[in-house]
Amino acid sequence: MQTQTIQLYENRTDVTLTAYILDDSREMLNGRKRPAILVCPGGAYVFCSDREAEPVALRFAAMGYHAFVLRYSVYNKGVMVDPRGELPVDPDSQYPNAMCDAAAAMLCIRDHSEDWLVDTDRIFLSGYSAGAHNAAMFCTHWNDPLIRERFGRPSSDFRPAGAVLGYGYYDWGRLREVSSRDEMARMMGEGVDMSYFGTRNPSREQFITASPALAVTADTPPMFLWTTCGDRTLPSEQSMLMGCALARAGIPYELHIFESGDHGLSLADQASAGNPEQINEDVANWIPLAQRWLTRHFPLDVPTEVGGNPFA
Amino acid sequence: MQTQTIQLYENRTDVTLTAYILDDSREMLNGRKRPAILVCPGGAYVFCSDREAEPVALRFAAMGYHAFVLRYSVYNKGVMVDPRGELPVDPDSQYPNAMCDAAAAMLCIRDHSEDWLVDTDRIFLSGYSAGAHNAAMFCTHWNDPLIRERFGRPSSDFRPAGAVLGYGYYDWGRLREVSSRDEMARMMGEGVDMSYFGTRNPSREQFITASPALAVTADTPPMFLWTTCGDRTLPSEQSMLMGCALARAGIPYELHIFESGDHGLSLADQASAGNPEQINEDVANWIPLAQRWLTRHFPLDVPTEVGGNPFA
Repeated sequence: MQTQTIQLYENRTDVTLTAYILDDSREMLNGRKRPAILVCPGGAYVFCSDREAEPVALRFAAMGYHAFVLRYSVYNKGVMVDPRGELPVDPDSQYPNAMCDAAAAMLCIRDHSEDWLVDTDRIFLSGYSAGAHNAAMFCTHWNDPLIRERFGRPSSDFRPAGAVLGYGYYDWGRLREVSSRDEMARMMGEGVDMSYFGTRNPSREQFITASPALAVTADTPPMFLWTTCGDRTLPSEQSMLMGCALARAGIPYELHIFESGDHGLSLADQASAGNPEQINEDVANWIPLAQRWLTRHFPLDVPTEVGGNPFA
Repeated sequence: MQTQTIQLYENRTDVTLTAYILDDSREMLNGRKRPAILVCPGGAYVFCSDREAEPVALRFAAMGYHAFVLRYSVYNKGVMVDPRGELPVDPDSQYPNAMCDAAAAMLCIRDHSEDWLVDTDRIFLSGYSAGAHNAAMFCTHWNDPLIRERFGRPSSDFRPAGAVLGYGYYDWGRLREVSSRDEMARMMGEGVDMSYFGTRNPSREQFITASPALAVTADTPPMFLWTTCGDRTLPSEQSMLMGCALARAGIPYELHIFESGDHGLSLADQASAGNPEQINEDVANWIPLAQRWLTRHFPLDVPTEVGGNPFA
């Protein structure tokens, strides 16, 4: 495996792509290209959580996929600030930058695909919490003129093949209706809104623009969605709103909602846990479920010839 | 993750340790050391198979363990030769070199443990086929004077904490009794014997010396063993011989023999397959079983404090 971190824009040290490129071997794929996964960690658009970065990338790499972690645009370049205090406007963290960072990552992967042996027709995204929102935004807007024009590349260069999304939110207005009932959620919500929209009070139009559940079309790729009923930060309803939108558009999708487990479990095992409550054996079943789904949608091109004398 | 390949001896380019070192993060272990796994790929002591190297290491890395791949001493530095032809004696590939390479790898990991944040009390081995034999040899001989004297270091510097061994052989004499009935197995067996003993006709004493199932003591660490009834290269009996030896010595062990599946399945999924017959959903269950066993024996030191405001 080769690992490297690439800065996606010359003038931005905070937006990076970390690549985990599997070794080729004549005993396995023997030069054939592999699918790849682009991981968007969560962190409420105020940071990119390590817990949803390398551990997740390695779990997908262990399935045989090249893996990438995108550290996308977040408030104040990811340096935490208390949302109770003064929050100056940060133009970098605002829509559509994070979504466009995913587009920049897709181009970077595509432009290295011969070296890295990436199958550019099979690059899928994975995101968690705000990262799931960002990945879903990209998956529903990859062929918007906005992206094509910003990068001066045809839409086909950005096409994602699928997405695995955990405990995301997909209808921002509906989320605010629900979470405004809770004081802590309201306060954190204001921080996210400040980061993504540059205001504590975004308009109805802004919420609609940033709601992937309202933007699903026939061009949206298949999705694997999961969350927990016990999520106290983002209601599980959000994943169902996304599932309903996919169902209406006839997009293949899978949805798993586990009963137990709070927000932000990542792999839900020791590899991504920061405390014992982030280990949950039931919820950890999302990984084998996702593995089956991925293997069905994106099987490796394992050579079909069987056998042969190893000494030949 | 940092990856690097280290040459273990100045004068041998063929014996290497490839390290897969997980990033530390204040969101997870926050400077605490991790257990590590040392992977010995198989290949009949004539090569080290890629299929049992990086894919296996990454699967363990995805469990949260630092991972290492050891390319140990094999015949003709791993450059394949036809066993039907003339086989000159190769002193480098002979006992006890491969076993001592595992010892050298343990020292290398120990000597980097502060940099890499490795918990040296919890380094376990994993091996497959000949690699399982080599790992088992090391696990049953780590405190032999031979190893202590070769490296001039105390036995405690070499102590392994456990082993996960797939489709290995552990009683060389018994293996030859069984496999000599089959012409192809006999021919391949002669190649392995030539590599490991420097003769096509090793003595009974040589077989005994190289049989970990005959060397289990109270100092042998716990083991997780698995193989398949359908293995046409190494009889599944071999894993039971090792299990019996561990049982007699009172060493905790676990043994899983799957009914289907031929020799050399590695992860038994697409990540390690060179052809479709090397994918076997039943056999792939060894991984979650091993993960449970490892998590019980070698849990990560996940911080016990729960919660806290992420913005604090």
